[in-house]
Amino acid sequence: MRRIAAVIGLGLIGGSLALALKKHTDFTVIGYDACQQTRQLAEKSGELDGIADSLQTGVAEADIVFLAIPPGAIGQTVQQAAGHLKAGAVVTDVASTKGELLRIVPQLLPPGVCYVGGHPMAGSEKTGFIAANAQLFCGRPYIITRHQGVSESALAQLSAIAEQIGALPVVLEGEQHDPAVAHVSHTPYVTAAALTVLAGQGEQGQLHLALAAGGFRDMTRIASSNPSLWADICLTNKVEIKQTIARLKDILDTVESKLANGDRAGLTEFFQQAKQMRDACQSN
Amino acid sequence: MRRIAAVIGLGLIGGSLALALKKHTDFTVIGYDACQQTRQLAEKSGELDGIADSLQTGVAEADIVFLAIPPGAIGQTVQQAAGHLKAGAVVTDVASTKGELLRIVPQLLPPGVCYVGGHPMAGSEKTGFIAANAQLFCGRPYIITRHQGVSESALAQLSAIAEQIGALPVVLEGEQHDPAVAHVSHTPYVTAAALTVLAGQGEQGQLHLALAAGGFRDMTRIASSNPSLWADICLTNKVEIKQTIARLKDILDTVESKLANGDRAGLTEFFQQAKQMRDACQSN
Repeated sequence: MRRIAAVIGLGLIGGSLALALKKHTDFTVIGYDACQQTRQLAEKSGELDGIADSLQTGVAEADIVFLAIPPGAIGQTVQQAAGHLKAGAVVTDVASTKGELLRIVPQLLPPGVCYVGGHPMAGSEKTGFIAANAQLFCGRPYIITRHQGVSESALAQLSAIAEQIGALPVVLEGEQHDPAVAHVSHTPYVTAAALTVLAGQGEQGQLHLALAAGGFRDMTRIASSNPSLWADICLTNKVEIKQTIARLKDILDTVESKLANGDRAGLTEFFQQAKQMRDACQSN
Repeated sequence: MRRIAAVIGLGLIGGSLALALKKHTDFTVIGYDACQQTRQLAEKSGELDGIADSLQTGVAEADIVFLAIPPGAIGQTVQQAAGHLKAGAVVTDVASTKGELLRIVPQLLPPGVCYVGGHPMAGSEKTGFIAANAQLFCGRPYIITRHQGVSESALAQLSAIAEQIGALPVVLEGEQHDPAVAHVSHTPYVTAAALTVLAGQGEQGQLHLALAAGGFRDMTRIASSNPSLWADICLTNKVEIKQTIARLKDILDTVESKLANGDRAGLTEFFQQAKQMRDACQSN
């Protein structure tokens, strides 16, 4: 009998996950979204094996449940689903912050149901099921978190699925996750938004935006993403983001002082260090 | 008789300019580079009408001279070329900072030779003639500066050429240039380098770079550019960059305080403002 995967939340990530599971794995894929229009859209696409009309029926038969909903909604959704989950099921999520979830979700689940935190590092400035695609995770890191008491077999299952959909599974200790994503995702996003507002505000704002060339556009592309989703994400990781922004400001200060001192060698060395790091990251 | 354009400096920008002039205009295009190997490479490519073996012979017959060399080298190069320029010639450059050049270059030129500042807002993290391409300027802003006493006909000539090579000429008052590029180019570059070092340094640096996904890669792509060239660029615009970094830090502070206060509405509003500005800039 084919195993069943339920994807709860059919936005860009959930929709792409559902399509990727359907395309690259043997799972029967059931989707559910709290928004009726999204369910209709997904139903009409005919891409999935079924669209459930409630959270509870969606998860009832599932061997693995992917919660692809905003981080702030996960606790409540798990509570609502808990009584309907199959014994032996694995529950995972795609939230970009893990600290709180790792504390609360395992306790909300019935015995015999395992939680493993998941975070596919993929996205787009586009949103919604309409932008979903089965290749979204190809070549992208898929973080899987190991918390105290995690089921090793659930962890292995999720790693295997991540590989099947073309992603690169990276297992992290739970407490490593949030500082890491503050560095490579949340603070970069906040900074992109800040650079955009810096350029776009004031009397010369229109001129600046008209002059924006390739480098600026690349750097600020992510500032086109969903503002309220990012507000949620940032709020769930505010302590780490605060510390990371503070360190970013310290680094900007050292660059500024090299500039003020006309320290050409020091500036070149700093930029060279950045280039080496960036080039290393390209080859991953 | 066909008019002659000389391109002095055959790196990425100069090389692309020479190729673009050759492809999209009627100019006879002569190239020169202080580096012999670069001259040989350009000669061997057979793409230009000729490669001069000295700066002086390169500019001697030219109706328009493009100085595509590092900003710090422009003053000296103009001095060396000045006695060899044709009466009525136009001298322009591609430097990304203009303040000092607008003060010194016009005075170094003989009577009858006009300077117009130029700054094509195009580039790549790749460098050298090997990466040059005739389409580099397509759809990109090409800033042309109007300083006191500028020749309107020289200005019109450069605008026409910028259009012919597919760029979007934008005429700015000289003093508007440097603050504008600090906002849309220099400070974004410094910030990309800072974000890369922030992520890549320390014990978790390797992990962070391994986790870097699309958003981070887009944001930091420019940090792969030529470090010593950027050190030069930043040093020529250090006053404006310092002010712009200070404003960036202020903006980061306001985001941080919204985060600390759990001000979801304020954060969403800020990110929404960034999104609107970024989306406006896409349509340019």
